[in-house]
Formats: sequence, C-alpha cells, structure tokens
Amino acid sequence: MARLDSAALDLILRKARTQNGWLGMPVTDDQLRAIYDLARLGPTSANSCPARFVFLRTPEAKARLLPALSPGNVDKTKAAPVTVIIGHDTRFYELLPKLFPHRPEVKDNFAGNPALAGTTAFRNGTLQGAYFMIAARALGLDVGGMSGFDNAKVDAEFFPDGRVKSNFLCNVGYGDPSKVLPKLPRLDFDEACGLL
Amino acid sequence: MARLDSAALDLILRKARTQNGWLGMPVTDDQLRAIYDLARLGPTSANSCPARFVFLRTPEAKARLLPALSPGNVDKTKAAPVTVIIGHDTRFYELLPKLFPHRPEVKDNFAGNPALAGTTAFRNGTLQGAYFMIAARALGLDVGGMSGFDNAKVDAEFFPDGRVKSNFLCNVGYGDPSKVLPKLPRLDFDEACGLL
Repeated sequence: MARLDSAALDLILRKARTQNGWLGMPVTDDQLRAIYDLARLGPTSANSCPARFVFLRTPEAKARLLPALSPGNVDKTKAAPVTVIIGHDTRFYELLPKLFPHRPEVKDNFAGNPALAGTTAFRNGTLQGAYFMIAARALGLDVGGMSGFDNAKVDAEFFPDGRVKSNFLCNVGYGDPSKVLPKLPRLDFDEACGLL
Repeated sequence: MARLDSAALDLILRKARTQNGWLGMPVTDDQLRAIYDLARLGPTSANSCPARFVFLRTPEAKARLLPALSPGNVDKTKAAPVTVIIGHDTRFYELLPKLFPHRPEVKDNFAGNPALAGTTAFRNGTLQGAYFMIAARALGLDVGGMSGFDNAKVDAEFFPDGRVKSNFLCNVGYGDPSKVLPKLPRLDFDEACGLL
C-alpha cells in the first residue's frame, strides 16, 4: 500500500471528531487489548515505552475519578463506556534491559538523571497517548481526550506510590454525533511552519 | 468505513519502522504541506495547537542543526531529504481567540500561569508531533524520530527569541529498508495496562 485512501484518512484524522456524548454500545476488553496492541507499535525514544494505561470500565471505578474532573468533563465521562487514564512510568528505564536489550547501559543515563527521565517519560508517554487515540479510531472506535482534571488528585487516588504520573484522560466508545461540537479552526501552514 | 483494513494498519503502525537510512528520492514542499494539513486535524486540549514545525531541506539548513546532534544521529540526518524540528510555542495562548473563539477567556488561564502554559504546550505539541509522524506514514512517507540532541543548542540557533522551544526531531523521506534495525520488543498488555 503506497498511502491511505481517502476513507481511511477520514477515519483516523480528517473526519474524526472529539466526542462529548456516547451511544449505549459497550466496549469489550478484547477491543481495549486490540487498541493497545496496535498503539504500542508506535515509535518512542530508545524504545522507552513509558506510557501506562488504566481502563476504568465500571461505575465504581469511574466514581474514583469523578472528584478530580473539571465540571464540564463529568457527564461525558460518566456516560462513556470506558475512560482511560494515560500516565507514564517515571522509572520506565528499569525496563530498558528488556526493551532495548542491545544497549542495556542506556538505563544508567536515566537512572542518574531524574529530570531527563521525567522529560523523556512525559514526551514519549504523550506520543503513545496519541498513538492510542489514532489506534482506537483506526479500529472503529471514537475517542475524546481530556486535560481538564486535577492530576495530583488522580495520582493520589490511582498511583499512590508515586511511580506513575497521570498525563491525560481519554473517553473511548461509540460517539453520539448529535453531541459533536462544530469543528474549530486550525493554524495555516505559514502560521505554524517554517521552510529552511 | 468501519475500521482500517489490514494493509492500512500495517502502513501506519504495524509494519512501519523507524528509518535510519534514506533513499535518494526527494520530498517536495507540497508533500510537507499535505502532511501538516492532515496532522493539524488531530485533537489538542482547548484546540491549543501549540506545535511548530521547522523543515530543514538544504545542506545549509542542516549544517545549522548538526552541531547539536548526538554523534549517532549525524549521518542519517545529513542523508534525509528533510529534517523537521518539532517545537512548541510557549505563548500559544495568544492565538486562542482564533483557535477557541467561543471561549476566548481561556487565554487568561494560561497567560497568568506560565507553568500550566509550558506543560500544556509540551503535552499538546507532542501529541501533534505524533500526529505528524502518523500523517507522514499515511501519505506514503517514512519517518525517523530523534531525541538525541541538545535542545538548548537548537533553541539558541533556531528560536533565539525564546518563544518556541524545541521538542524532538524527525527525519522524513523514503527509508532504505537495508538500514532498518530489528524490531524491538514491546511491553505486554499486563505490563503496561490495568483494567478497573
């Protein structure tokens, strides 16, 4: 395949939309595993793979998250079949002997430099969060990412030992087209790009 | 379209590989514009669109970057048709009246809180960097992301006024299959994910 066709481009980016309401169809654990199996193949620096995904599938699990949400994110999160907490492991480097076996000494670069480790975890965990959203769309699901929440509250509730830090949230399901907002403008090429 | 077919999944993630060598075919400015036009449609928080892309297309432009690179990244960057500096605008919020016109007051949340603005720019600029790499693959190009460089040197050379900060680099072109490294292992679902 030389490139995606028009319908495929529409599905993953051109016509895909952030969802604010959800239809009643459930999302199975097998679907969540399929999204992860696809998303994990995206590239990260030194194959660091720092992203961690916590899937909240029940009202009881969601109830632990709701106090941390901005008011505008509560109803759509309650309605979504699944809400994912996308975080990153600040000690991801402990797994590098498995993930980067030909140069296990790379681990030491991060173990002795918490600032570098933190930035690397955040950058690459975020890349993996984007791969997750694209992968979900590629497999026929809809997503709605959210940054409107209190990271410290989420960390205290879900990651009390401090090793994993929350990054952003993402609802997953089958979106209700009637709840989609008008598409917002994007920056033109010359506003965001330079050619040298 | 309900979901991508197998060949499409292969193209954007399953068989796509980080490239370390490049064939001689050029990348046109029209192709770079097409990648940006697709990548910019991906979701960002409050439609903040903080990513900035500087495309280095000539030996002269590349020469400004080379002193900042880790030794292992020099040859492949010199060989790539285009190297992109992916950065983010730390004052992205000044554009929110255009990008988020229904709630222009959101700008003030960031203008008065540089730490929040910086984290938001980094997170969402990184998401857009991932969309860029997926978009390039979707349009039939190959990419090779790189974090092995001195961000401060790149910022001083390309963004001297301090407003834009470099995030990561990405070579773009048509990859040389003979230079691809063996696929590294990924974390299993149970190593990276939790079901609640």
